[in-house]
Amino acid sequence: MEDEVARAIDEVNKEKLEKFRTETQNTVKNLAHEIYRLDEEVYKQLGSSLGRVFSGDKKREIHSIISALNDPDGYKIRNDLVLISNMARTIKNKNMRKSVMQEYSQILKKVRSLPESFAGNDIMDYELAGLNQLNLKTRFASNHTIICIGRTYGSGGTDIGFALADKLHINYYDAEVIKESENILEALENEKKKNFLSRVIYDFGKYHGLAKEDAQFFKQSELILEKALTEDFVIMGRCADKILTNNHIPHISIFITAPFEIRAKRIASIKHNISLRQARKLLKKIDAASKRHYRNYTLQRWGDIQNYDLCINSACFGIEGSVELILRSMNR
Amino acid sequence: MEDEVARAIDEVNKEKLEKFRTETQNTVKNLAHEIYRLDEEVYKQLGSSLGRVFSGDKKREIHSIISALNDPDGYKIRNDLVLISNMARTIKNKNMRKSVMQEYSQILKKVRSLPESFAGNDIMDYELAGLNQLNLKTRFASNHTIICIGRTYGSGGTDIGFALADKLHINYYDAEVIKESENILEALENEKKKNFLSRVIYDFGKYHGLAKEDAQFFKQSELILEKALTEDFVIMGRCADKILTNNHIPHISIFITAPFEIRAKRIASIKHNISLRQARKLLKKIDAASKRHYRNYTLQRWGDIQNYDLCINSACFGIEGSVELILRSMNR
Repeated sequence: MEDEVARAIDEVNKEKLEKFRTETQNTVKNLAHEIYRLDEEVYKQLGSSLGRVFSGDKKREIHSIISALNDPDGYKIRNDLVLISNMARTIKNKNMRKSVMQEYSQILKKVRSLPESFAGNDIMDYELAGLNQLNLKTRFASNHTIICIGRTYGSGGTDIGFALADKLHINYYDAEVIKESENILEALENEKKKNFLSRVIYDFGKYHGLAKEDAQFFKQSELILEKALTEDFVIMGRCADKILTNNHIPHISIFITAPFEIRAKRIASIKHNISLRQARKLLKKIDAASKRHYRNYTLQRWGDIQNYDLCINSACFGIEGSVELILRSMNR
Repeated sequence: MEDEVARAIDEVNKEKLEKFRTETQNTVKNLAHEIYRLDEEVYKQLGSSLGRVFSGDKKREIHSIISALNDPDGYKIRNDLVLISNMARTIKNKNMRKSVMQEYSQILKKVRSLPESFAGNDIMDYELAGLNQLNLKTRFASNHTIICIGRTYGSGGTDIGFALADKLHINYYDAEVIKESENILEALENEKKKNFLSRVIYDFGKYHGLAKEDAQFFKQSELILEKALTEDFVIMGRCADKILTNNHIPHISIFITAPFEIRAKRIASIKHNISLRQARKLLKKIDAASKRHYRNYTLQRWGDIQNYDLCINSACFGIEGSVELILRSMNR
């Protein structure tokens, strides 16, 4: 009995699928004719002197459009459409151009809605996109805005992060500020507890056995996660992006850099008593150390585009321009 | 006589400079006191339990603020200000918090307007920024909007470029489209001239002695420069960003990529008869070829942030999200 029901359902589904396939193939066939007609129309409007995308035998051309529409890669059909629309935009008569472009837009919409259209295969990674606060589509309104900024030395990234926090009226953290905050918070806690020893013993027990650098990293990671639950902020470096990603906390992850030589010149102009040659040497050393640190704690390549949401060349924007670009990309 | 005039002018300038220096130092001194008072105020508002940034002897602290304000690196003074403002934002009384934050903003403004403030040393490269159409500050209204998109295979970059051109109602060019356009334009020209031979001889004379790949590259470069003078467009690859930069034509330069494994999966899902393993192999091969081609014609590293204005990780945005991000960053 159950078998029979299952078989019946199977049959219905099979029929449904068959119907769906037939319908899709009819849509594809009609679309192919529409595309052919559009090409013909554009060709007529531009006069016989201009080339035509589908200039061969009509039956064969329609057949080739159909197979292009059925290809999930979609490369061929997109190019055909592009060529037609590039041509169409050169039609001199304004009304005619508008009417042809409207027709083109409708065809494009239909192509996009095909089950296997070229727009159907997105590159979006749902986990990454879900954690990316710049992706307004997946953004959770209830989350705090957390902006993680990695940057190369001399790129002005720190200035950009600071100015950004100031514009957004949110807190700003970098290595120095975190260290100072820790000191202040520790003093506060000690005053509260009036028991410095218990704190030291607690920290000792928790981070015992770790190298000093590791202990500091884990302590800072905890602080970052704590802050992420309670406030909006900009944080510089600290592998904060990876710490938040690993803990599934949405944030914005930005990397800022500029060409080496431009950074070296800037350092030489900012730092007293440092020549351009010394600046270059210093830069190489600091870049290498940052790279090592990031790989050490994230197992990823520092400054590699695929590890961030967005990367900015600050030499192309300047400090103020970079801040504005970030604000625009946040829709502010 | 002339010497005397020169000396007099020198004297005046010297005096002016001296006056300017004295004025600046007075401003710095007053500012140091204001910063000290702000810290004191925040400390009072938060109660004695919380730490204070300038907790030492007043005279010595003021002195240290002054020297921090005079340091062109500005790292120390910025951190001091950050700590005070981070603290100030935790003041519970709303009116008091607002008043303190206003005071902070005014101090920040004054610090920024100092001749050697931390905001005075920009990273902006005037040549790069002047060619960057995303940098709205330096944008020339009269220029055509040209968007150059470099992308890794499988990143969805092509789909993003195509959708972007469609949204902006401007032309779209990639390798295939350019080749087809060339063919069509050639046919058009030949029909006009009714002289195919003269065209062939012209091309032969112009590109004679070049390898086929090089000849094609230079031919395409010319086409890109020609188009840049007459229309808005999106162009994929073709080292178009470098061709335009070398010819001082403003444009937007974007690179799109996504993590290797996510790209491989996408290719395997799009292409018929390609396994994930084959997709990985294909990706590596195509990435290497793109890298070689880019280095060959630009002497730069393909996909290195510092060679573009902006880089996007498409896995964090998806195709539609990336298009929207680019539109937002263009202020559209």
